[in-house]
Amino acid sequence: MNITSPSTVISPPKEIIEFLKNSKNLILATHINPEGDALGSTIALSISLERLGKNTILYNRDGVPYFYRFLPGHERFSNSDFKTLTRDFQELRGPVDAVILLDCNTPERAGIEIPPDTTYIIIDHHEPVGGLPENRALEWIEPSAPATGVMVYYLIKALGVEIDYEIAVNLYTAIAIDTGTFRYSNTTPETLKLASELLSLGVKPEEISEALYDSWSINRFKLLIECLNTLELTDGIAITYVTEELFKKTGTSQEDTENFSNFPKIIKDVKVSVFLRQIGRDKWKASLRSKGDIDLREVAWSFGGGGHRNAAGFIIEGSLEEIKKKIKDRLKLVTK
Amino acid sequence: MNITSPSTVISPPKEIIEFLKNSKNLILATHINPEGDALGSTIALSISLERLGKNTILYNRDGVPYFYRFLPGHERFSNSDFKTLTRDFQELRGPVDAVILLDCNTPERAGIEIPPDTTYIIIDHHEPVGGLPENRALEWIEPSAPATGVMVYYLIKALGVEIDYEIAVNLYTAIAIDTGTFRYSNTTPETLKLASELLSLGVKPEEISEALYDSWSINRFKLLIECLNTLELTDGIAITYVTEELFKKTGTSQEDTENFSNFPKIIKDVKVSVFLRQIGRDKWKASLRSKGDIDLREVAWSFGGGGHRNAAGFIIEGSLEEIKKKIKDRLKLVTK
Repeated sequence: MNITSPSTVISPPKEIIEFLKNSKNLILATHINPEGDALGSTIALSISLERLGKNTILYNRDGVPYFYRFLPGHERFSNSDFKTLTRDFQELRGPVDAVILLDCNTPERAGIEIPPDTTYIIIDHHEPVGGLPENRALEWIEPSAPATGVMVYYLIKALGVEIDYEIAVNLYTAIAIDTGTFRYSNTTPETLKLASELLSLGVKPEEISEALYDSWSINRFKLLIECLNTLELTDGIAITYVTEELFKKTGTSQEDTENFSNFPKIIKDVKVSVFLRQIGRDKWKASLRSKGDIDLREVAWSFGGGGHRNAAGFIIEGSLEEIKKKIKDRLKLVTK
Repeated sequence: MNITSPSTVISPPKEIIEFLKNSKNLILATHINPEGDALGSTIALSISLERLGKNTILYNRDGVPYFYRFLPGHERFSNSDFKTLTRDFQELRGPVDAVILLDCNTPERAGIEIPPDTTYIIIDHHEPVGGLPENRALEWIEPSAPATGVMVYYLIKALGVEIDYEIAVNLYTAIAIDTGTFRYSNTTPETLKLASELLSLGVKPEEISEALYDSWSINRFKLLIECLNTLELTDGIAITYVTEELFKKTGTSQEDTENFSNFPKIIKDVKVSVFLRQIGRDKWKASLRSKGDIDLREVAWSFGGGGHRNAAGFIIEGSLEEIKKKIKDRLKLVTK
């Protein structure tokens, strides 16, 4: 059933509200390599559903990155694999009513296979790529929402749960991450009003910002400097990279590069920042960030990836020189 | 007359509102090395006063830095020196009713001498250092305000002027700069509500953020990398610096270092970031940034400078090694 709302008014579908009210056991899952919106939205909804007497269990394939462990309730995420978790949950609580996918719109993005007889619910603000899933799903897809956290805020209100400090911190973090803490174009007057309400519930903006932006290890900072030293800028396209060797030299790992792609954007002439990190012998993860109207979605799709207009990514194989050229050639089509 | 409000409710003193309503010719001045709050507040108030039929002229000793020239109305700032400007304004318009000092609370901070027979008005959110000026001034000092821009917002409302897009951009920029675009502890629920109203008047957050944060020259970026390469971190104190030689090597100047002091703060272990830039043979400008409860005001005062709790600065003489040691020794008293 496709119940995507076309308007910019964010109001949760009645079918989903009713389904949740009548449910007992729910599995909440979010996308692989989770960030603040994925984690915060999922935890906030879990706390709220349990407040209504529901049983919930939370799944993420990659666990909670260390710099998100400040989120109250992050320990709700289970360490089991999805099959074991489902089986244990059923044994303990009885039949599972639904799997809720948050901040993603296919089971694949969450790295799971949903059992054939299970309903699933999608709550996401990403544009669906290549058709919607089959009709065992209740879908609420709202690309106009700045964050899945904003959708979850309205859903929690619709469920009649009062937002407390713990829920507020999770929602604020979700919204902060996806709006660049209110700097991106998806920040609306409504977003700031909502954030204002969350602050009045006790959220301290400086604490969240410090946790999100000022909690780097010294090694991660050294890796950033090394990365920025690799900067090449031609035709408005900035390319920086981190090799496996550099990870070793600085004692860092893949998750330490979160946000690296944003730094070269501070240069006026940069229209697109491409950050490459080595994930195998000739295998790279590309993270792209663009300014203004430059749409990265088609570029990412053409390389088998995905994302938003101004932030997208994909995996690409080849030597560093080869892939730089490929990406630059493709980007020239959108930056001209 | 001291009419500092003690409460956190920001409401402009009646004496100032009445004075402005009855005035005809006003000079608006702000502090040397102006940033977004200084410039935005001053321009917003000037537009509003002219809307009421007043004549205004704007003064800043250092002019408008190139990266603030996106502010609508920035060309209102005169290039004349203060004496010439005052004389020309009087010849053209008649007697000057008052000089309004914005975002600073002494004429010295604005680099001016106010003629002995002239009233002046102070509108500022900085804590006054070393006693208040003599009583020719109407003072409105509100250290609880996150930005002078917030005070000016309430003043404009009290004057009965409707805030339009141009005023809104200036106020939004003023507030954005002084709250780290809503990331610092001075961001209140009220701040976000006010910002929400400014967005609904057409301010585009991504445009302001791009202008404020993503408009660096490539040379400025190179200077930053060189600067970060100088990082020393001991006992939670990060020190970075830029020498005159480095300015030459990268083709940059003093104003290019704005915001450099904030970068090392992203390291978790950093409690205070000290950024030093050379302004003479053995002369340095120190910019300090702290996290959380670490109060830098007394440190800055002890070196003859000033600022806020988490952001302060001063000028210091000596060799690089000498001043590093002096500053570290003094900071140890507040970081323990």
